Amino acid sequence: MVTSWASNEGEGRRTLRGTLQYVGTAYAGFQWQTSAPTIQGAVEAALTTVTGRHSRVTGAGRTDAGVHARGQVISFETETRLSEDVLLRALNATLPRDIVLRDLVEAADGFHARYSAHSRAYEYIVYNAPTPSPFWRLYSHHVPGTLDVEAMGQTLRHLLGEHDFAAFGLPMERTRDGQKVRGGTVRTMRAARCWSREEFVYFYVEANAFLRHMVRRIVGSALKVGQRRLTTGDVLALVQRPHSGVAGPTAPPHGLYLVSVMY
Amino acid sequence: MVTSWASNEGEGRRTLRGTLQYVGTAYAGFQWQTSAPTIQGAVEAALTTVTGRHSRVTGAGRTDAGVHARGQVISFETETRLSEDVLLRALNATLPRDIVLRDLVEAADGFHARYSAHSRAYEYIVYNAPTPSPFWRLYSHHVPGTLDVEAMGQTLRHLLGEHDFAAFGLPMERTRDGQKVRGGTVRTMRAARCWSREEFVYFYVEANAFLRHMVRRIVGSALKVGQRRLTTGDVLALVQRPHSGVAGPTAPPHGLYLVSVMY
Repeated sequence: MVTSWASNEGEGRRTLRGTLQYVGTAYAGFQWQTSAPTIQGAVEAALTTVTGRHSRVTGAGRTDAGVHARGQVISFETETRLSEDVLLRALNATLPRDIVLRDLVEAADGFHARYSAHSRAYEYIVYNAPTPSPFWRLYSHHVPGTLDVEAMGQTLRHLLGEHDFAAFGLPMERTRDGQKVRGGTVRTMRAARCWSREEFVYFYVEANAFLRHMVRRIVGSALKVGQRRLTTGDVLALVQRPHSGVAGPTAPPHGLYLVSVMY
Repeated sequence: MVTSWASNEGEGRRTLRGTLQYVGTAYAGFQWQTSAPTIQGAVEAALTTVTGRHSRVTGAGRTDAGVHARGQVISFETETRLSEDVLLRALNATLPRDIVLRDLVEAADGFHARYSAHSRAYEYIVYNAPTPSPFWRLYSHHVPGTLDVEAMGQTLRHLLGEHDFAAFGLPMERTRDGQKVRGGTVRTMRAARCWSREEFVYFYVEANAFLRHMVRRIVGSALKVGQRRLTTGDVLALVQRPHSGVAGPTAPPHGLYLVSVMY
């Protein structure tokens, strides 16, 4: 009993929380997969190397293949006696160079990067110039031609508040009582705006949670409005009558960044 | 005679001028080399593919291995009948994706990207944060720890004007009468400043021409001042008594960008 107590709830067992940045280009997304490199897999491997024990790592957002993060939040439990600062340095020395842990702190018992999160914020970067940029080709979506940023912003404002976003994506699969089930499609959009600066157009969206591909389909639809191939009304109709159609094309993953998670 | 006239000075022979951007990471510098990939080699290969004939391409600045360009200017002569616009598109479709030609226009006869240039401007990007950024690791020099940006700016101001920069680099080799000779080491610095924004420190220098490694040694010296390991006076002494010593370390190439060339 004492042994079990010591190994499960003893002085050495802590929940840690960290902020992760990564270039998603070389990864099949955040979530662990058997036969493809993932962010979760890389962080868990680094943790095993550094601490000598396996820890399951949870991320606040399950970014898709090719999607980047500037502020992914992760949590994990560990029995290591290493201080947070030493563990941070050791992990960064072990992780591949396209993944960097920015900070690491002790979290309250029961903290869970995904379930404890109140909302997530994503940024999408469009490089809007006649020719592509060699510097931004892996970090932005190149869209030549004029974009009506005003109209795109107006479209995004219609998405604010609580809506059924079924036209914008599928709910993530969850496991309940051992069965895979799909959750609902109602989400609360807390911020949705876009602006241009120099040759770039930036999109910023924040919601309690997002459906799979939802940000990229919002951006894809907004871009169609910006190119005057859809109207703001067309997009509005998709949240007013969620099952009447599907949103515009899914913008490519390499323009998307998970920028922050609020708790 | 008519044949020679037609092929050398005929209606189809033009001097073209273009602005080139490239990520220097994969290249051994601008200048053509026998056994290593270079920017000049890649552009000449694309021109041969598109026009069917070899053209010698000249660049305004001979960027070193790993150095980037946002505004390299190139010139070349061609007999192709393709319009500038069609040639621009065809070259961009042929060039590797880390090299992009932003524009292409007909230049005055005798225009030469290097000899006609009045001055060159370089930017150097330092990522000044405790941990490196996965996004900036190939595009900036990571310097953790506090930097005294004020002191670095003061140091740079001492370099303005005409000085003998022998302590900051070697002159490029030139060929004169079939012999390789080294030019002088006096240069005129028209701008030299630095500033910080978010986690970045930017350096901007502009001169009629630069010695080999000169920008990187100016930045390396300024960073030593920023870290309080050299004084502004130490750097000033190097331009006052050019042969009394050598400038601080050469900052790594991946923070350096050729940003513009003035004619």
